[in-house]
Amino acid sequence: MEPGNPLTFGLVLIPSFAPPLMRLFLSILLLLPLLCLGQPAKQTSTPITIGTKQTIHSAILKEDRNLWIYVPKSAADTKTRFPVLYLLDGEGFFTSMVGTVDYLSALGKMPEMIIVGIENTDRVRDLTPTHFPFWASGKPANELKASGGGPNFMAFLEKEVMPYIEKRYQTQPYRMLVGHSLGGLTVLQALVNQPTLFTSYVAIDPSIWWDNKLIMKQAEKALTQKDYAGENLFFATANTMDKGMDTVRVVQDEAQGNHNVRNHLLFRETLRKSKNLAWAWKYYPEDNHGSVPFPAQYDALRFFFKKYELDKDLKDSTITLEYVKNHYRTVSAILQYPVLPAVGTVNALGYISMGEKRYDKAYQFFKMNLENYPTNAGLHDSMGDYYVEVGDKKKAMEAFRKALSLEEIAETRRKLKSLEARK
Amino acid sequence: MEPGNPLTFGLVLIPSFAPPLMRLFLSILLLLPLLCLGQPAKQTSTPITIGTKQTIHSAILKEDRNLWIYVPKSAADTKTRFPVLYLLDGEGFFTSMVGTVDYLSALGKMPEMIIVGIENTDRVRDLTPTHFPFWASGKPANELKASGGGPNFMAFLEKEVMPYIEKRYQTQPYRMLVGHSLGGLTVLQALVNQPTLFTSYVAIDPSIWWDNKLIMKQAEKALTQKDYAGENLFFATANTMDKGMDTVRVVQDEAQGNHNVRNHLLFRETLRKSKNLAWAWKYYPEDNHGSVPFPAQYDALRFFFKKYELDKDLKDSTITLEYVKNHYRTVSAILQYPVLPAVGTVNALGYISMGEKRYDKAYQFFKMNLENYPTNAGLHDSMGDYYVEVGDKKKAMEAFRKALSLEEIAETRRKLKSLEARK
Repeated sequence: MEPGNPLTFGLVLIPSFAPPLMRLFLSILLLLPLLCLGQPAKQTSTPITIGTKQTIHSAILKEDRNLWIYVPKSAADTKTRFPVLYLLDGEGFFTSMVGTVDYLSALGKMPEMIIVGIENTDRVRDLTPTHFPFWASGKPANELKASGGGPNFMAFLEKEVMPYIEKRYQTQPYRMLVGHSLGGLTVLQALVNQPTLFTSYVAIDPSIWWDNKLIMKQAEKALTQKDYAGENLFFATANTMDKGMDTVRVVQDEAQGNHNVRNHLLFRETLRKSKNLAWAWKYYPEDNHGSVPFPAQYDALRFFFKKYELDKDLKDSTITLEYVKNHYRTVSAILQYPVLPAVGTVNALGYISMGEKRYDKAYQFFKMNLENYPTNAGLHDSMGDYYVEVGDKKKAMEAFRKALSLEEIAETRRKLKSLEARK
Repeated sequence: MEPGNPLTFGLVLIPSFAPPLMRLFLSILLLLPLLCLGQPAKQTSTPITIGTKQTIHSAILKEDRNLWIYVPKSAADTKTRFPVLYLLDGEGFFTSMVGTVDYLSALGKMPEMIIVGIENTDRVRDLTPTHFPFWASGKPANELKASGGGPNFMAFLEKEVMPYIEKRYQTQPYRMLVGHSLGGLTVLQALVNQPTLFTSYVAIDPSIWWDNKLIMKQAEKALTQKDYAGENLFFATANTMDKGMDTVRVVQDEAQGNHNVRNHLLFRETLRKSKNLAWAWKYYPEDNHGSVPFPAQYDALRFFFKKYELDKDLKDSTITLEYVKNHYRTVSAILQYPVLPAVGTVNALGYISMGEKRYDKAYQFFKMNLENYPTNAGLHDSMGDYYVEVGDKKKAMEAFRKALSLEEIAETRRKLKSLEARK
């Protein structure tokens, strides 16, 4: 395969290695002790798990709280550490967030992350900054009588949840907070009151209207006075306007039903005045308040980590090992923690070099990946492919066996069998 | 809360019920038999599982194959049946697809579905229709020597996988096939050769170039001759063009590197000539071959099920129980199987009616939902909220207890405790 035919890599080679790689991050398999349940020993059905639900007692909130915790596969190697994504309304968004983060990190578009979903016990109490039992229209609201527990909830997050996670898991200092609706308001409260607690903030269709737009006044002051260098915000606005209204005309409009989008556009003007905050705002014309979190969380991750990807096309033959190392040194400076070269990206570079018959270069990439992620079965499989290509059957079989000792992968098993049959 | 203030529903009420509802579909918890492992009886850490991996033996392929199977929570009620999504490259896309389907179905934007991911053993062999060991450029390709097993693989899917699934799970006759790259080519092969095997086909950046564009000739014939009434196709094209190229100029372009997009645009012209096929094509300027599956699978589901959602805004006070029932009767006719009213939509209508103090109407919606989904803990929680609102503490406690007997939910537990304390 010659270097002059780059697209072929995109159409055949990328799929041929992407799935085994993704598999590693996507499939955290946990073997049930079937024998002790009296079932047959042969393992024909195993659960596919994406995390654990853990209960901790909060002295601050005086109640038990459930955390939904996802840990990337690379954590099997105890020296690798990860940034942490704290997710409000955890029970609602955990599965889709895990799917999104797994997917983007396997592709090398963002680093692997630990995800901590916080399950609600009393959502209105926890996600509101003040006691304000009224709707936006001013009418009394029984449903909001418990409101005002926000400061307590943030103390729980900072003083109980974070120490719990950072003590037990392999964490980096990079933290992200994601919230929707009243959770989005909570994110903005944190941005204003605790701007160094998180590196990145995701406010999805936040309830700016709360308590006579209290957050607007607070943000106007904080964002223009404090220095937000190194802090990041993604702000998403759903289409909750009356039919026929648009984001230009709504600014002059006074209908109650359009107040949310209007408030968001006003908040954006405040963001424009912020000191050194890296922020993006996006409007979702095809999504309402309920459906906007899914596309918004994806866009937020793409925004925060846009410098994480290599700035050259993977098929660019001028890419060297040194260029890759330098790139992730720069990324480390931006993200403020030591960032390893992306496993999927480096593996892709190995295969592309191999396709170009630049075997020394291919070996360098595969080797660096194994040094960084020694417990990743798929990378041993890749090294096996390399040895097959250069005609070293013995080392190829060793690599496939090593992969299978870490994880049973059907494609790897087939390749090993095929080599054994040829002996 | 008056009907004249619709947005408030969007900003406070929707989040207050959406998470408990989603939780039901998103969190399929499986309790580990911890006691038999000698660990303490108190359950403080439980795995979060999204499915099971099952191994079946294929007589056709003469090998064991792994299936990754997700079953919606509503399947706990044995009379509910679901359409089935068959996913190629299952090990790569299972988690993100589960996250997407769970999310959209909890919102009432698509029906709940069973997902069956097929894990690869020999991807090149299975996902290619002919033996063709050459790249698009015509150069020989060692990597493609195993190609040509496509017909065998489709026989495995039809005669072994489908009967296995349909015998063991609560399936509807509606089937979807999703594939990417060579998997996308496999999807198009099925559309051409077995148009009644699936109702919906998703071809994500398919390898049209295979074997001198064989699929183009086959499609030109089949699509214009057979009647595709009731069949659906979503076709996604990634941006794999050289920098500066666009989808208008590429049609006249002859560069090898741009052949994929050019082929796709030609294929679209064939689709235009198809007989009664419902199809959509989308181009993704910001996504390459590797990243396009995630947004494309989301868009495909939105396209196939766009008639599934109510055609009125949920806050429209003219919506009646009869209107909802009629809507899903129409949806059943379109999707060709009996479709239950969407659990999330009906629950939302219950809360909205309750907010408008139309208690009889609210009760009707909550009751219909419980009749359709009797084992859904979140719906018993909703009924509990209804009884709290109308002042019937006894029935409220009964409903919360029923919910907790089906599933431990922190918010429900708190509400029950609060009522018990008030006794």
